[in-house]
Amino acid sequence: MRILILGGDGYLGWPTALHLSSLGHEIAVCDNFARRGYDVEMGVDSLVPIATLEERIAAWAEISGKEIKSYVGDLCDAEFTHAMMRDFHPEAVVHYAEQRAAPYSMIDQAHAVYTQKNNVIGTLNVMYAIADTDRDIHLVKLGTMGEYGTPNIDIEEGWIEIEHKGRRDRMLYPKRPGSFYHCSKVHDSTNIEFGCRIWGLRATDLNQGVVYGADTAQTKLDPRLATRFDYDAVFGTVLNRMVIQAVLGHPLTVYGNGSQTRGLININDTVECIRLACENPAERGEFRVFNQMTESMSIRQIAETIAAEYPNWEGAQGECTIEFVDNPRVEAYDHYYNVVHTALEGLGLKPTLLSRALLDDLFDVVERHRERVDLAAMMPTVRWDRTANELPQTGALAKT
Amino acid sequence: MRILILGGDGYLGWPTALHLSSLGHEIAVCDNFARRGYDVEMGVDSLVPIATLEERIAAWAEISGKEIKSYVGDLCDAEFTHAMMRDFHPEAVVHYAEQRAAPYSMIDQAHAVYTQKNNVIGTLNVMYAIADTDRDIHLVKLGTMGEYGTPNIDIEEGWIEIEHKGRRDRMLYPKRPGSFYHCSKVHDSTNIEFGCRIWGLRATDLNQGVVYGADTAQTKLDPRLATRFDYDAVFGTVLNRMVIQAVLGHPLTVYGNGSQTRGLININDTVECIRLACENPAERGEFRVFNQMTESMSIRQIAETIAAEYPNWEGAQGECTIEFVDNPRVEAYDHYYNVVHTALEGLGLKPTLLSRALLDDLFDVVERHRERVDLAAMMPTVRWDRTANELPQTGALAKT
Repeated sequence: MRILILGGDGYLGWPTALHLSSLGHEIAVCDNFARRGYDVEMGVDSLVPIATLEERIAAWAEISGKEIKSYVGDLCDAEFTHAMMRDFHPEAVVHYAEQRAAPYSMIDQAHAVYTQKNNVIGTLNVMYAIADTDRDIHLVKLGTMGEYGTPNIDIEEGWIEIEHKGRRDRMLYPKRPGSFYHCSKVHDSTNIEFGCRIWGLRATDLNQGVVYGADTAQTKLDPRLATRFDYDAVFGTVLNRMVIQAVLGHPLTVYGNGSQTRGLININDTVECIRLACENPAERGEFRVFNQMTESMSIRQIAETIAAEYPNWEGAQGECTIEFVDNPRVEAYDHYYNVVHTALEGLGLKPTLLSRALLDDLFDVVERHRERVDLAAMMPTVRWDRTANELPQTGALAKT
Repeated sequence: MRILILGGDGYLGWPTALHLSSLGHEIAVCDNFARRGYDVEMGVDSLVPIATLEERIAAWAEISGKEIKSYVGDLCDAEFTHAMMRDFHPEAVVHYAEQRAAPYSMIDQAHAVYTQKNNVIGTLNVMYAIADTDRDIHLVKLGTMGEYGTPNIDIEEGWIEIEHKGRRDRMLYPKRPGSFYHCSKVHDSTNIEFGCRIWGLRATDLNQGVVYGADTAQTKLDPRLATRFDYDAVFGTVLNRMVIQAVLGHPLTVYGNGSQTRGLININDTVECIRLACENPAERGEFRVFNQMTESMSIRQIAETIAAEYPNWEGAQGECTIEFVDNPRVEAYDHYYNVVHTALEGLGLKPTLLSRALLDDLFDVVERHRERVDLAAMMPTVRWDRTANELPQTGALAKT
């Protein structure tokens, strides 16, 4: 299949490109390098050094003999987006190209507005480009489990059958997003579902859990193929961040009492889910939603799992403790959380559950790059209840 | 009370300013005159001539002895919005300042993007300005019944108690918006509900039906106080548009089979609803939703009501017929439609239902300005299933 990956230079976009290319699909990636720009803005950096997109693509050609085409541009530029869609004319578009950090969207007014404008307008332009070019193109869009919040009923896959006063309807599952970033993904879902109704678009919305892991079968092949590994308090996700704290001998920092529960997914399952969604497209006019996660754990459970495994790891020095810190977010504790996530397994996903071996691999990755860690970057600086947070100035900026 | 009316130069914003000012509230209006700009863009004009904002405010001072303050600027300009909020420091903000025509948002990519950017970013800036200035300020936001679509269950007021697999939760009512404009209002609701949770904002979201009527007790006092009356296919709403067709001896144009049902509200009830919402504010942290409509009618029923009354009007010439035309929108026919709208009546609203007297008044208004009507502007040019519609070039432009 011809597959266009938007945000193909990112943490998941790049491994997805490699995974699909290795399976023989014809791949193009698009990126405007906004993610690399956020690092510069905040003075932080990926734990694992990453090559430029040009170097990555050249390395992949050298190693696999396969070509990945690239488009450099901004989806908010409608002309660029249309031209790319016409030029590559994909069968599926995988859309990762959004600002994807909740804390970044909560820094202040400017960052909230940037996040919503960038994500919503970029996605609208992609929808128009598809509708103009070929309405058979399947849009595979990354959403997030954080759109749902923590309702007191089971979280279904995007739609829910509601019985109310003796009548019934199948409706979009009500959302309770947890940040302006999460809100932007809800907006996208609203727009895309409408696009399916009026233009007969075919779309798959993948509400993804917290992704962990540092590499896939392909990114491991050569250091030039490595993907980014974020650990800072703004872009780093919880499990990856705690693994680093463990290796550095720091307490694992849990926000609040840690009873908040999250859906998790391993990076190897993410790329496989994208393959399954692309190879089994939605019907014309269908807005299909999958919950892309494989297991649920509370933040405290994640910390306890890491703390328990750390002493068994061959590089361990001393023990690993847990520290409960003031929660910068506004979120529920001790809530019900039960997520339906059977659709992707129905298409053939074999879940990779969190295991001792996986954690040991992650400890190893951190150990190799431990001299690159800036501990100051790991403490939360962005509070949800404030309208103007200081921009984190850690890493490069803080050191100068 | 000190009340700031955003979009205070518009069809409803201006009469709301007069209504609240006449009752002794201290009023400021804000506008960037975007609505007057759309007229120029599309070569159409209000049926009733309207004075400039400056002339309107001067006339109101002359007639009532009351001052209305004005701020001219764009809510997408965060600095302007913050400065205005600090300067006027209102107790309530009434927010009409959005692009509010579904067909306008469906013209093409640029108009869809403009609508969502303008509406969503403007509202985000208002939220940040309130949160920064004083979180006690009550945000009274205009939404639309078109956010709900036509579900097969009763439409509750913004929230619904869902029982699912033996568990219960109170959740936002699922939306099925009918245009990119309607989607933008859903996005606003998502953002505002989040703002109430994290900042403890107090907000009232008013999902308004189709407004009809040409004047209120205050706008009638002097021609300089008149509000706009749109009849073109882009900004004109269905009842007002059909009244003009009747007076001009043209068939009333019904889209499709006319079984689509809408909630309606008279302009005099709108301004009264705003008063009730302002004088009875939401609690801190509360996201309150009212369905601001007083009766439901199908498009065919509206046409039949007008056609039946027309021959009884003293200015009638001949009869009034109905013509069913191809529907430019994508929408459901013969659907269930039952809307709960008891909250505003609970606060004291006395509904003004559509009556023969009201229609005769509207026929009179049209008769006074019939020479200003451009019939070509009334035929729909924007189709929902197309991604690029020709910009309507009627009225002034078409005549040159």
